[in-house]
Parts: sequence; structure tokens; C-alpha cells
Amino acid sequence: MDYRKESLIRHEQWRGKIETVCRVSVDSREALSLAYTPGVAEPCMAINADVEKSFELTRRWNTVPVITDGTAVLGLGDIGPEAGMPVMEGKCALFKAFGNVDAYPLCIKSKDTEEIIKTIKLLSGSFGGINLEDISAPRCFEIETRLKEELDIPVFHDDQHGTAIVMTAALINALKLVGKKKDNIKLVINGAGAAGIAIAKFLLNYGVTDITICDLKGIICEGEEWLNTAQQEIAKLTNREHAKGVLADAMNGADVFVGVSGPNCVTKEMIKSMAERPILFPCANPVPEINPKDALEAGAFIVGTGSSEYPNQINNVLVFPGLFRGALDVRAKTVNTEMMIAAAQGIAGCVSDEQLACDYILPFAYDKTAHECVAKAVSEAAVRSGVAKQA
Amino acid sequence: MDYRKESLIRHEQWRGKIETVCRVSVDSREALSLAYTPGVAEPCMAINADVEKSFELTRRWNTVPVITDGTAVLGLGDIGPEAGMPVMEGKCALFKAFGNVDAYPLCIKSKDTEEIIKTIKLLSGSFGGINLEDISAPRCFEIETRLKEELDIPVFHDDQHGTAIVMTAALINALKLVGKKKDNIKLVINGAGAAGIAIAKFLLNYGVTDITICDLKGIICEGEEWLNTAQQEIAKLTNREHAKGVLADAMNGADVFVGVSGPNCVTKEMIKSMAERPILFPCANPVPEINPKDALEAGAFIVGTGSSEYPNQINNVLVFPGLFRGALDVRAKTVNTEMMIAAAQGIAGCVSDEQLACDYILPFAYDKTAHECVAKAVSEAAVRSGVAKQA
Repeated sequence: MDYRKESLIRHEQWRGKIETVCRVSVDSREALSLAYTPGVAEPCMAINADVEKSFELTRRWNTVPVITDGTAVLGLGDIGPEAGMPVMEGKCALFKAFGNVDAYPLCIKSKDTEEIIKTIKLLSGSFGGINLEDISAPRCFEIETRLKEELDIPVFHDDQHGTAIVMTAALINALKLVGKKKDNIKLVINGAGAAGIAIAKFLLNYGVTDITICDLKGIICEGEEWLNTAQQEIAKLTNREHAKGVLADAMNGADVFVGVSGPNCVTKEMIKSMAERPILFPCANPVPEINPKDALEAGAFIVGTGSSEYPNQINNVLVFPGLFRGALDVRAKTVNTEMMIAAAQGIAGCVSDEQLACDYILPFAYDKTAHECVAKAVSEAAVRSGVAKQA
Repeated sequence: MDYRKESLIRHEQWRGKIETVCRVSVDSREALSLAYTPGVAEPCMAINADVEKSFELTRRWNTVPVITDGTAVLGLGDIGPEAGMPVMEGKCALFKAFGNVDAYPLCIKSKDTEEIIKTIKLLSGSFGGINLEDISAPRCFEIETRLKEELDIPVFHDDQHGTAIVMTAALINALKLVGKKKDNIKLVINGAGAAGIAIAKFLLNYGVTDITICDLKGIICEGEEWLNTAQQEIAKLTNREHAKGVLADAMNGADVFVGVSGPNCVTKEMIKSMAERPILFPCANPVPEINPKDALEAGAFIVGTGSSEYPNQINNVLVFPGLFRGALDVRAKTVNTEMMIAAAQGIAGCVSDEQLACDYILPFAYDKTAHECVAKAVSEAAVRSGVAKQA
């Protein structure tokens, strides 16, 4: 099936992938008096006396907007706020189906970092958490960092951390299969945008010690003039040997390749130069860094991609519904590293040792048990790390 | 029943009066590929090429946020953004139940007019229309006026126009019963806040010619120093004889009293001084300007209040669901006077001549036929007045 062509037809028929429904009766004088005036004055005054009650007396506790400025939508780039809405709406549908989270899409008609931060802060009293989506780097770093500092509800930029979490889950299970340890592997990330940098930071936090990041201009190395602020920061933490060169140099002897870059930039020769039993996660969308068939032919032991057309889809749909479900369930004040690592371990743990195979390292995105698993792991980590307001 | 006490208990049980649901299947690889990636890229690009398509390919066409800053919630005043949310959520429930509109509540943590305007404008690409709610005067006038000028989707401040429209519907049917004409009556409005001024403007547009507005300090008259900008403007259009005095003076000889002020400010003596077959709409909430029983004893011919505890509830729930339904159905660019007058006439027309009686001048708020009636009248008026993008 040509998914894109068929999807357009379906979207024309659907006219919206989500809708709002009414949970209460309003079909009599009495019902109206309870759900609306005059009765509603009492919950209003209760929240006026204690704003925390807004999490009990309204839907706030379960409500998460999926917010974009439309600047980095899928692999399509800066297509504008309204044009990003089909993706935001799709995420809202997935939030509900897999996490029972009430999400709604919001697009912001601005690319100004301060305006975006301000807009979200002004609206934050309406929400239980905030999911940022498809905002281009480096603005997405500043926006998320500031909102996390200034708000006391979970803020999560899915493109950074969702991808990092599911990639880590894939790595955990792949390392089991090849019998290697996280602190004894050489890992290469190709792509130094929001996703690549977030994956590097996350893997460092998780305990991977030897990471090299490449971008179009080659290996990222401390002191290079062409790096942006975010790249300069991450360069200090990776490539400790100050290696210079291109992707092929970085791949030489590497155990793991993580691709969040562009199509067809990895060759069979590069794979042949890697360490034994190499793991490759070429996740560029829609065309991966190397076709999985070619990668396997060249000696790759395990291959995972961003696409559902091949085995081992590394899909952040596995992350956000359960992560927010878990955070909302315990009224977490934030999403911290402990919670994100728990999510990665939760996803990896959904594949039993009996099931684990080179072509089955992750659960399917539509597997509801996996999302429940993530939610539970995240709730527990929030409580354990002291950021849960309700245990 | 003590509605307020019981309402608090219900709100604790409900934990939200609305929720989001998923309208599409996402339970297989194929379904995910159509509703989300990679298929979703195609509707995104279609909107990128023509932003109007966002009304066809997403839920935007049916989506209306109910937005407040929490400064004038019910009769409770400035209770704060979060504390206004139970009311906003209630309106969202009514929007769905009576108008099949997908509404969601947003509160803005700011009282600054420019900040509120900016926030809503930045978000406007997400919506099919905008319902402003419980924003205090005079900021609500500026906010609505500016948004109407600067956006090409319907913007409606319910506290002003919803009340004005349903009050006019009540007046239309009451005048039939007393055999008087709109251009030959003396009408007094008590309360010169957002609602009072909006009612006066609307009734002037509708064709009522002799209107006097009072506030706590007495009759509003051109040139008085204590008037705010909005009051000065309306004073130029009302009280053409430059009458001075207090409410009792204004009531003397009046045919109609409209109250949007405070409790118990109308006396039996005032009613006795009115013209024959006086009509009284004391709509202060929760305690009216005069108790309906007292009003009838003093000679009132028809009494309507804001409360569901008495006959003739003048309830703006009769307006907003059908008004937005009608506007959204034809992709109206705005809500204009023609559409609002059509809504008033639509509501009035729901009571047949046979049904019409002194204690039944308006349909019940939970009568779905009434809302359909309003929607149809509004759609037709939008088309007739040339503001509909789809006929």
C-alpha cells in the first residue's frame, strides 16, 4: 500500500483523528445545575482556596497538550504550525489509545523562543503535563530547559527524549544478544541535531562511556569552530580522544551505530570495518542511513530502523503514552533522568529472554502491555526519586 | 438539593467533565502507518501547500477553546485562572452535548490585555473558532474587538453577546405577550459592566430605541466624569434625554427592566411605578435584583431570571452551542450582528404561539431542538451576510 496516498484519503474521510466527549449528564434542569451553574461555583471556590485541587476537580490531572511550532515536522522540516497539526493530532490519538491520556494538539504561530516559552507558561494552569513536539534545534533545548525550570508539571520534548529512550531500550536488548556490556562498547551516533545530541546525553547518563558523534562535516570534536552551542557542550562529553575525521573513521572498530541523520550515508564497507557482531540502528526517516538488507549482507548482527516495514522498529510511540501515564498517575513534578531510564528498561523488559531474537528486540508499538509496563516503571521511578506528589 | 454542596461531591467523583477520545484505529502496523508515520506526511504537505486544508484534514473545523483569565468567573469575580476551569469545562461539556462542538478549556495566567490577545493569536491556527469567557470589563471589550479584527475565524465573548442574545430572545416573546413593539418601549438596564453594555448595544442594533442604563452611582449620562471608556461610549447612544437620577427614577414609566447587576436592588414600589404590563428580567446570579414572587405581587406581567429555580430562565446555554455549530458549519469568518440577531430570533421562534405563555417565553436549555434551530438560523445568516466561506 502507498501509505502516504492512502493516508490523505483517510484524513479527508476522518476530518479529525480525535474529538472531545462529554462525561456528564446535562439533559435536565438538575443535571445542568450540578455540572454548570449554580453548582459549579463550589468547585471553583475550592480551587481558588487551594490551586492543587484543580488536579482533582477538573480534567487537568489527565490533560497534556501536544505543542509544536511546526519547524521540524517529521523529516519534512519547517512546514508551518498548521501543517504540523496532522502529526500532533496523531500523537493525541496515540496518547489516548495507549496511555488513556487526554491530549489535544496546539500549534504556536511563532518561531521566537521567548514567545513560545511565554505562551506555554501562560497556559500551563490548564494542563497536567506538556509534550513538546517537532520544534527545531537548537531552540527546542532552550524551550524545554526553561519550561522544566519554571513549571512544576512534567515537560517532555519527545523528539529528543522519546527517541533516546526507545533507542536505549533497543540497545539494552541488542547488547544482551551480542553479549557485550554498555561500559565496554564503542558507539557512534550520526546526526548532531536535537535527536542525536539527546541520545548521546541519555546514553552517557545510562552508562555508555565511549560515544563519538558525527555530523555532515565529520566527527564532532571539542574546539571545532563550526559547532553550535549545543554541539559544543556535547563535544566536551564525547570523543574524549579528540579524534578527527569523517563517519568512516568513526565507524572503524565501533560496536554500535546509531543513525538519526539522512538517507544512504552508511556503506557496506563501513559496516565491514566495525567490531564483531555489529549493531546498527539506522533510523533516518523515511529512508534509513543504510537499507537493512544491505546492512545484514555486510555483516550486521542486529539491525533496527525507524520504519515499520522492517523488523525492530525503533519507534518513540513506545515511550510517550506510558511515560506520561506514569508521570500523571503519581502527579510527578517533572520528568527526570531516573524516570526516563526506567522507561527504557521497562520497554526492554517487555521482551522476555525466550522471545528475544535478532529480529525481535522491541515490543510492537501497538502492544498495550508494553505501555502499561512503561507507565508502571515510570511511576515507581518518580516515587523513588522523590518527584511524585502522590504516591 | 443544595446544588453547590452536591456539585462539589460530583466534581470529586467525575475528575473531569470532558475527555478526549480517539476516532481512528491504531491497533496494527498498517493502522499506525496511516494515522501516524509515515502516512501522515501527506496531509501535512497538503496543508503546507494550502493552509485552508487544515479545516478538512484535521479536527480544526470543529474545535473551539473556551478561554478565560479567571477574572470574572460567574458572580464570583477574580478567582484566578485555574479556579475558573470548572466553569470552562462545564461549557465544553455543553458545547458537545448541545452543539456537537469539540471544545476544550484553556486558562491564561495573565491579566494583561496585550498578553492575552497575543497568546490567543499565536494559538489560533489550532482552532475553528474562539469562545472567550469570564474575562472582566473593560479588558474583555478590547480583547474581543482586536481578535475579531485580526483573526479570520469566529470570535465570541459569551458573557457579552450570549447574554445579550438570549435576553433579546426573551424580550421578543415577552413583547408578543404584552402586545408592545420594540421601537415603542422604554427599557431600563441595571448594571453597566460587560453584560449590561453588550445588551444595550445589541438591543439598539435590534431596534429598541429608548434605553436607559443605570449603575451603582445612578443613571449613565453622557459627560459624567465617573464613567469608564466603554460606559462613555454607550452613554452617547442611550439616555438621549440626558436624564439624571437613580434607578428608581429610570424605572418610573418603563416597560421593561433588565437586571445584570446585584441582589435585591429593585423594590416593589419601583415595579408599581412602571408602565402597564411591565416585563422584568432580574438576572443577577445567584440572587436576582428582586425575587420573582415579589415582582409578580407588585404587578409584574412577565418575569424571567438567570436561575433555573423559576420559570423563564434566561440562560446563555441556549446560545453558544448552536451559534458556534452554525458558524462552524459554513466556515464563517466571524460572528456578526446578523448572525447574533438570527440566533435571538431562532431561540424565540422555538416557542410556538400556542406554547407561548407568561411562564413559558423561552425553550429549556436542555432542549436539543432549540440548539438545532439556533444553528440553522446562524448558518443562514452567515451565508446571507456574506461571511461564510462554505455555503
